[in-house]
Amino acid sequence: GSAEMGIVGGGKDAPGVSTYVGNTRDSSVEFNNDFTLTVVGSGQTDSGLSFGISVDFSTDAEPNENGNVALDNEAVFISGDFGTLTLGEIDGAVDKRLTEAHNAVGQYSIGDDETVHAGYQGSYGDAAYDNQILRYDYSFGDFGFSASMELNDDKGTTPATADDADNGYALAISYNTDMGGVGLGFGLGYQYLEAGIGGWAPGNLSDYGFAGWAAGTEVDIIAATVSADFNNGFKAGFEYSNYDPSGAGNSDVDHYAIGLGYTMDALSVGASYGKFDTSGDDADGWALTAAYDLGGGAAIVAGYSDSDVDNNDGDYETYSLGVAMSF
Amino acid sequence: GSAEMGIVGGGKDAPGVSTYVGNTRDSSVEFNNDFTLTVVGSGQTDSGLSFGISVDFSTDAEPNENGNVALDNEAVFISGDFGTLTLGEIDGAVDKRLTEAHNAVGQYSIGDDETVHAGYQGSYGDAAYDNQILRYDYSFGDFGFSASMELNDDKGTTPATADDADNGYALAISYNTDMGGVGLGFGLGYQYLEAGIGGWAPGNLSDYGFAGWAAGTEVDIIAATVSADFNNGFKAGFEYSNYDPSGAGNSDVDHYAIGLGYTMDALSVGASYGKFDTSGDDADGWALTAAYDLGGGAAIVAGYSDSDVDNNDGDYETYSLGVAMSF
Amino acid sequence: GSAEMGIVGGGKDAPGVSTYVGNTRDSSVEFNNDFTLTVVGSGQTDSGLSFGISVDFSTDAEPNENGNVALDNEAVFISGDFGTLTLGEIDGAVDKRLTEAHNAVGQYSIGDDETVHAGYQGSYGDAAYDNQILRYDYSFGDFGFSASMELNDDKGTTPATADDADNGYALAISYNTDMGGVGLGFGLGYQYLEAGIGGWAPGNLSDYGFAGWAAGTEVDIIAATVSADFNNGFKAGFEYSNYDPSGAGNSDVDHYAIGLGYTMDALSVGASYGKFDTSGDDADGWALTAAYDLGGGAAIVAGYSDSDVDNNDGDYETYSLGVAMSF
Repeated sequence: GSAEMGIVGGGKDAPGVSTYVGNTRDSSVEFNNDFTLTVVGSGQTDSGLSFGISVDFSTDAEPNENGNVALDNEAVFISGDFGTLTLGEIDGAVDKRLTEAHNAVGQYSIGDDETVHAGYQGSYGDAAYDNQILRYDYSFGDFGFSASMELNDDKGTTPATADDADNGYALAISYNTDMGGVGLGFGLGYQYLEAGIGGWAPGNLSDYGFAGWAAGTEVDIIAATVSADFNNGFKAGFEYSNYDPSGAGNSDVDHYAIGLGYTMDALSVGASYGKFDTSGDDADGWALTAAYDLGGGAAIVAGYSDSDVDNNDGDYETYSLGVAMSF
Repeated sequence: GSAEMGIVGGGKDAPGVSTYVGNTRDSSVEFNNDFTLTVVGSGQTDSGLSFGISVDFSTDAEPNENGNVALDNEAVFISGDFGTLTLGEIDGAVDKRLTEAHNAVGQYSIGDDETVHAGYQGSYGDAAYDNQILRYDYSFGDFGFSASMELNDDKGTTPATADDADNGYALAISYNTDMGGVGLGFGLGYQYLEAGIGGWAPGNLSDYGFAGWAAGTEVDIIAATVSADFNNGFKAGFEYSNYDPSGAGNSDVDHYAIGLGYTMDALSVGASYGKFDTSGDDADGWALTAAYDLGGGAAIVAGYSDSDVDNNDGDYETYSLGVAMSF
Repeated sequence: GSAEMGIVGGGKDAPGVSTYVGNTRDSSVEFNNDFTLTVVGSGQTDSGLSFGISVDFSTDAEPNENGNVALDNEAVFISGDFGTLTLGEIDGAVDKRLTEAHNAVGQYSIGDDETVHAGYQGSYGDAAYDNQILRYDYSFGDFGFSASMELNDDKGTTPATADDADNGYALAISYNTDMGGVGLGFGLGYQYLEAGIGGWAPGNLSDYGFAGWAAGTEVDIIAATVSADFNNGFKAGFEYSNYDPSGAGNSDVDHYAIGLGYTMDALSVGASYGKFDTSGDDADGWALTAAYDLGGGAAIVAGYSDSDVDNNDGDYETYSLGVAMSF
């Protein structure tokens, strides 16, 4: 399990992407404590297939009082020579095989500042429907292959507005190698989805006021990432993705992001920047993270992010400071 | 603990009895994953009484994303020479002592297809109020006796419509014997309830559009079951119950069901059929289940059910296919 | 973990302070079962600081059926020579250092009868905002010191009614000593809060129909307690607190309470009485508790309370009887 305690805060317009939510009135700071208990079960069939489940018990509704317990990242798998089949609230194939810039840096904060800004993209076309994904993984040497599917549950809010979007699917490959002492990782993926009721927009854009593509729009996503570990304390990552919508009047969106991290003894720092380039307004954002390892599973972690959206002068900064613990 | 992964699906009119819910528009299929973690605590008093609690943590709101955690089957007990007293979300006396047809078969599916059809009856008069039941059990040799009570909490949705239904109670006996190599189980029970606000109907009937008896209707239930294990792979069960309502214009409802199962090595198959015979429209339904045991606690399980309601041409079929795991 | 089973009941006007809620129509009795599972995690940094989390999984919405799981008393701490810093749903400094009359008695019931009456006061100015409290504790010999803070999250129900109340804070000290064979405990504390949207009233007063002070009222709280263990089976406690509101037309509220308990072999009994003395109507209440220890962690526990509010002739009595278990 893991736990966090500290403060989260930020500007009045920060959308509810993660822990901190702006109050639209002025800047604010709040206490935040969180915990996650991961329960794992596993077994093996007579023919040697392994199977199991992993599920996180964690608080929801933080930073408010007394949240219910939410199940997060619930996943059931069965694995054998044929590969691994996993069903649950998991990454789709593209998100599984690609390493986004901030993951290449490998740091986090208790307010998730590195993932909440307007320039962040972290799950490609996943969770377009009910976020229940079936994924198949297969590895051979340094190569990995994944394919995934997310079914549209075909449930409208009323019968009259039934959601008959296509199912989504994704394909991706990864390749890891070592070149002159630098560990390199490459990922390439394709994903398809059809926007359901409520529309769809990449990344956090809809939280930042972007309209999104209307229901029925078919979106093709192509994405590639490169990550590097220089084995001298420095790490770096780069990601690119393109979102190609169907429909007259809809235009491509490009996203790119870069991240850089450095670790020296107990201290590590990181920075990441991302941008969505649309035919109209653009959105970008950046984040700084720092961690000081106290040993024994505890670390002091700090994060900061800010966002910039064209023609939208919001107060979007977020910050957090606290202690992260793992048990 | 246990877990499941697979697909559930069915017709557009399938009511929300269990995992799969029809969308009223067309047939559909959905991913489903579930898990249950059972927590047990127990102790012993100085005088030798044993006591304990059992509670299931499981997902609710599946097959949708990210359900909260629900407590299910929470029960606290204290046990001694006098018998066992249990309080919680448990079977009433009749459901405890009788073995319904599909339980005699002893199979299940990840979509609970065997319990969702219109001809299924599985809990007699339990859960007419708040589903908190106090039950006393006593066994002597092959005989078992149970008595239970469910209090009407006397809570209306508004003071003006206070629910002042009687408390419910139930009495039942069971007898197990062996006759010519065939294991036989007999159960006989009586249960009483008064319909509260919202009325009451047996089995899944209200989910299939039956009106139910109005608030204030007193219902006497008599039920009997016979189950047989032929010890050659075949198992069978038969159940009968009668629902006798008070009130002018209300008529008896009869329910009967039959089940048959066969196990050969790792494969087992089962079938069950049930029917509600009312003075007006009848409802019946049937289910097929199959399981292939992979060993180590894992099994591939499949289920199918369909329902037939007089003068109601709904598309009620359900099916499921997946892997069930226990740890 | 712990569990309870039994009945709770009482008068029609008992407010929803704890397990039993009156139905406004007539007296009622209900089954109640509850369980709490406490999960604890802890670790140690390289420099010797200890850290950890404690969280209770328990049912909510009892005594109704099938509650969700609620996280209660979630707290994360880090501790060292400097003292202990704790963040979560915890006691504020005053509640931590002072021993209320019913706590000095040290008994409880499954319906929490001893804490639900109109004369009960148990948390001073805690939970005025979101009940997330950061507290610092330091002990030196028989003395203890605590300081705590609760941030106003500054969230209104709408932007137009933003809640900009001050943050709350609290300071308290405790001293334990032995005088002529009698164990004595003293506590003294000060707390400040500003009433947010919805106003604020001490103790359970708002549940018993008191209007509370309007948003923006600043409240100074001074409190003192004395507890005594006579080491012959008798225990006693006394508490006093004063609530001094700002604002024209607002008047002080005084609260005092006294408790007495006696234990002989397996049997223990307790009584407590408390009163809120306001410039207008007064409210008082009293409770009786009894427990018979069965050994092994099980006890039969009974409780009774009644309340008396000036000019409010409600039927406020509550009672409970059951078995409490710990594992």
